Amino acid sequence: MQEIIRELLQPNDSKIVLCVLDGLGGLPFNGKTELEAASTPNLDKLARNGACGLHIPVARGITPGSGPSHLGLFGYDPLKYEIGRGVLEALGLGIELSPRDVAIRGNFATVKYEGGKPVVVDRRAGRISTEENKGITAKMRERIKTIDGVKVSIISGMEHRFALILTFPEALPLGSDDIPDTDPQLEGKSPLHPIPRRKEADAVAKVVSKFIELAAQVIRDEPRANYTLLRGFSIYPNLSAFAEAYGLRAAAVAAYPMYRGVAKLVGMEVLEVEDTSIKSEIETLKRHFEEYDFFYFHVKKTDSYGEDGNYDGKVKVIEEFDSFVPDILSLNPDVIVVTGDHSTPAVMKSHSWHPVPFLLSSGYTRGGGSQGFSEKECLKGELGIFRATDAMTLILSHAKRLQKFGA
Amino acid sequence: MQEIIRELLQPNDSKIVLCVLDGLGGLPFNGKTELEAASTPNLDKLARNGACGLHIPVARGITPGSGPSHLGLFGYDPLKYEIGRGVLEALGLGIELSPRDVAIRGNFATVKYEGGKPVVVDRRAGRISTEENKGITAKMRERIKTIDGVKVSIISGMEHRFALILTFPEALPLGSDDIPDTDPQLEGKSPLHPIPRRKEADAVAKVVSKFIELAAQVIRDEPRANYTLLRGFSIYPNLSAFAEAYGLRAAAVAAYPMYRGVAKLVGMEVLEVEDTSIKSEIETLKRHFEEYDFFYFHVKKTDSYGEDGNYDGKVKVIEEFDSFVPDILSLNPDVIVVTGDHSTPAVMKSHSWHPVPFLLSSGYTRGGGSQGFSEKECLKGELGIFRATDAMTLILSHAKRLQKFGA
Repeated sequence: MQEIIRELLQPNDSKIVLCVLDGLGGLPFNGKTELEAASTPNLDKLARNGACGLHIPVARGITPGSGPSHLGLFGYDPLKYEIGRGVLEALGLGIELSPRDVAIRGNFATVKYEGGKPVVVDRRAGRISTEENKGITAKMRERIKTIDGVKVSIISGMEHRFALILTFPEALPLGSDDIPDTDPQLEGKSPLHPIPRRKEADAVAKVVSKFIELAAQVIRDEPRANYTLLRGFSIYPNLSAFAEAYGLRAAAVAAYPMYRGVAKLVGMEVLEVEDTSIKSEIETLKRHFEEYDFFYFHVKKTDSYGEDGNYDGKVKVIEEFDSFVPDILSLNPDVIVVTGDHSTPAVMKSHSWHPVPFLLSSGYTRGGGSQGFSEKECLKGELGIFRATDAMTLILSHAKRLQKFGA
Repeated sequence: MQEIIRELLQPNDSKIVLCVLDGLGGLPFNGKTELEAASTPNLDKLARNGACGLHIPVARGITPGSGPSHLGLFGYDPLKYEIGRGVLEALGLGIELSPRDVAIRGNFATVKYEGGKPVVVDRRAGRISTEENKGITAKMRERIKTIDGVKVSIISGMEHRFALILTFPEALPLGSDDIPDTDPQLEGKSPLHPIPRRKEADAVAKVVSKFIELAAQVIRDEPRANYTLLRGFSIYPNLSAFAEAYGLRAAAVAAYPMYRGVAKLVGMEVLEVEDTSIKSEIETLKRHFEEYDFFYFHVKKTDSYGEDGNYDGKVKVIEEFDSFVPDILSLNPDVIVVTGDHSTPAVMKSHSWHPVPFLLSSGYTRGGGSQGFSEKECLKGELGIFRATDAMTLILSHAKRLQKFGA
């Protein structure tokens, strides 16, 4: 589809705001979903006149992670494009990546040496404190700066976790991250060797091997975190830039690192926000509204409360967002979409596979199907149930940015 | 999708019952479909709280046979996987097959010999009686037991039909059934030769040629059935076992040979049932409920009455099944699905292409869309219209047997 869209693109000066309320979709608790329980007069009004439906993030019955579900909404088929765990973790830590980087998830582990050979005693180094982690990674950073001309970045995470970024002099070819995890999964076993699964991964595997050895020397005398286990080797995925694919000057209004990272991944400008509140995000949107054509506007807390099982908290965030809808409308965008990246029902305390409410407001909708904004009402809307990858095409057409296909 | 599912599988001890009311979908007669006319208080209640929709067995507008429609529901794309007619016929006759078998459909025909060459006079041997058929096949069985070490099984069918199974010493390679029908389709023509269409089919074609010659000698003096025409050469399809693909201990509760055969084909255990009544099937389900995770529960008569144009009969079978729903519920399965494999509207007296009502009941549905169980009410349900191949993914997710896709 992206190729067809590229051919049909016609520039205009329309403005688009795509609001993603993370984990928006829900399940009933006392007979009502979070969205049904929330008082949302502004969204309800948009829904009555707009085009509503429900989108399927990845495939029917599949529960998506945040990476795949965002890719889908941005028009990249998540079954085709994958964001590796290492990259996602790095994005989550707020690390900037480029096509020259390999991102790797690291765990500190405890090993004992038998005949010079390390044997894993504790795969998580007794879950050392984040403080202890910081001290150890600082020491490693000081001693391991480059390996064979490859820049080494070590970023401490929570407890026993860290991220390792290897920055090569040139962009890495596809497949150069095809290296198995070194974590043997079982205690009493030796760490595995990072043996490349294909030729393209030789260069990376060589540097990884050297890193493991160097790190083992540096932290050898630590009481618990005396070894590193590496997994989730991943290069920056080769996504044709969002802006380029859709002919848009695109910007992200997102407060949390992972979403800022995913937006950057597809080539959006990531705007500064004062803090993580919706109010701050609205201010950022207003401040930059003239500069871009397309805004990805992300609200995190619907998902966080969903994951916590905090039904009332999720309801309140939805209501808070609703109260800012007039602010968005006052900017006169040509297309507003309000949806989620996936469902996170509070009763499940987790992401789920359920289709996600989707509301599109523009001057070119039929309207009249849905009586408000909820899972049930969206089912009556003119868009029906559709795959998330169709969302961008629908958005562009309602913004009159697509020409006729064929004569 | 099956590959992705395999990666996401997480075992648990959930129980799943998939009830397939054969040919369930209907068309209105005096304004109501069979399902609308039937009084189904138990199914209606499940539908109100459950997730409803309609599935498309093969593709929009395509009327499926029993083989493809069951494969679809079991998650095998019927456009990709095919059960050959020979295999389907053999399954229908209750014959057990293995990967060493080639199943072939046979017709008795009448030929005259012109210069030693057979010319077809009647492609169906005047539709001889089934009795006459039995006598002739018995004679053939006695005289043709093996050919070049290949075991020959001849099973009489109705009128002029029979099934021929060739059992080779070893499992047959893909493509070994790629042999054209020998039926010339027109009277006055000679039977065609079973010339292999590719190298892999050489061995089978050779045995088939010899069979045709031997059979012609054995039945040469029959007044009508003096020759055999063969078609639908097919090996046992290479389906990755259902149980393996979905991580389920799966069992089939089905009374009729074809459905027992299809279930066996995808690797289910086929359970014994006392007789063909729904009551017997329910007893079997109860007796084995602890032993398996997944039950395919098949009801045949909805389809039989549909094919007969017996609208009232079909209504009654639906009502009978409804009366057993509390028995199924009393077992406390985590997921119950009630659907059909395809539609068989009594007014059409045949299978049809119409989407099939689908009702899924579990603790993780939104519900509230459908007011009962019928074609029209399912259209209002949260599942919308979907391809049958998505059914298993939906079932597994509602049983919480799938992990998140991506991070």
